[in-house]
Amino acid sequence: MTFDTLQERLDYRFKAPAGLRQALTHRSYGQPNNERLEFLGDSVVNHVVALALFSRFPQLREGDLSRLRAQLVCQDALHGIALDLELGAVLRLGEGELKSGGAERPSILSDALEAVFAAVYLDGGFDAAKTVIDRLFAARLATLDPTTSLKDPKTRLQEWLQARRRQLPKYRLVATHGEAHAQQFEVECTIDGGMQTRGVGSSRRAAEQQAALAAMETLENHAG
Amino acid sequence: MTFDTLQERLDYRFKAPAGLRQALTHRSYGQPNNERLEFLGDSVVNHVVALALFSRFPQLREGDLSRLRAQLVCQDALHGIALDLELGAVLRLGEGELKSGGAERPSILSDALEAVFAAVYLDGGFDAAKTVIDRLFAARLATLDPTTSLKDPKTRLQEWLQARRRQLPKYRLVATHGEAHAQQFEVECTIDGGMQTRGVGSSRRAAEQQAALAAMETLENHAG
Repeated sequence: MTFDTLQERLDYRFKAPAGLRQALTHRSYGQPNNERLEFLGDSVVNHVVALALFSRFPQLREGDLSRLRAQLVCQDALHGIALDLELGAVLRLGEGELKSGGAERPSILSDALEAVFAAVYLDGGFDAAKTVIDRLFAARLATLDPTTSLKDPKTRLQEWLQARRRQLPKYRLVATHGEAHAQQFEVECTIDGGMQTRGVGSSRRAAEQQAALAAMETLENHAG
Repeated sequence: MTFDTLQERLDYRFKAPAGLRQALTHRSYGQPNNERLEFLGDSVVNHVVALALFSRFPQLREGDLSRLRAQLVCQDALHGIALDLELGAVLRLGEGELKSGGAERPSILSDALEAVFAAVYLDGGFDAAKTVIDRLFAARLATLDPTTSLKDPKTRLQEWLQARRRQLPKYRLVATHGEAHAQQFEVECTIDGGMQTRGVGSSRRAAEQQAALAAMETLENHAG
């Protein structure tokens, strides 16, 4: 795998390949690295995917569009695309990072991919970046099914536990903060086995959803 | 104030003014309204401001750029720009919302402004939206001072309390979740007077910063 092959896979040829090189340089390697490019690339990919969802799902409301985008532009999804591109093979890492498996680390790969998007953007402009991103996300967008992926966290947590024949979560209001006109509710979610998470929100229900989301994330991280 | 005046203030003339009308239509008025446009506009403004910060502050690191952007693209700042444009005068609101002062509500105004950005984007393309957004944020970008605006939440909370001769916050680790390789720390921040907030993070320090941030937000919301 070479820079040339990567440019073929991106279907974009850099006018100034130094930009691509920087995008593939992890901070452990030295300067200039891809940290700032990642910041810019994150905003590009969020915008391009927002536009794609906006066009593809004319019936969906704002909250649902946001949730779908969060699923498409997350470390997991970006990591998947980085693996498809075999980005790990062209990453430039410091020696320590290389030895400890940095080239396979999801956070390093997804950050590098966002940096690559920024590099295309700076090299070829918005439309070039949009074309690259649209193509890389096309398959994921095509298979996106809003009816299953848009359940709220409490529902998802309940279904996850039921599928494993575990008891349902218990929600308990543990505190309210602030004055009446701007009250914040804090809810604790307890799952059999003893795991507890908390959520804060401007309504009891919103706090429960936050607590369920935290529980769901912890469970998914540990259930593999 | 008319749609014409607004287009002059935006320095952008719509080919299809229906897009602008929709951007100024709150959901309380009916369909088509600006909810979906707000989703798209939020991603446009976040990207354009990211690009402006990336160019203007070549020395700043990613985390600092993110913090600056969060300050520039927040309800407060967007509300301020909406007030400059007198957006409230051309909003289309349902009767109930109108009577209860919806045209002055910061969330409604900032959402409408984001929707206007999306309308420009859909009507005139990315460069048109970028030009409008850059011009509206120019003054705020010019006066941005990274040295004062980039303090972390614990520092800001401490300074806020010291300025009011109040006792310093106390941080206490209340729980750890998860297994060793993916541990989550939960920290409680207590402020004299009894207010408590919590934060969760992948390190004790990160959890403290989150708890301090929650405290800072609650204090700022109530201190006016």
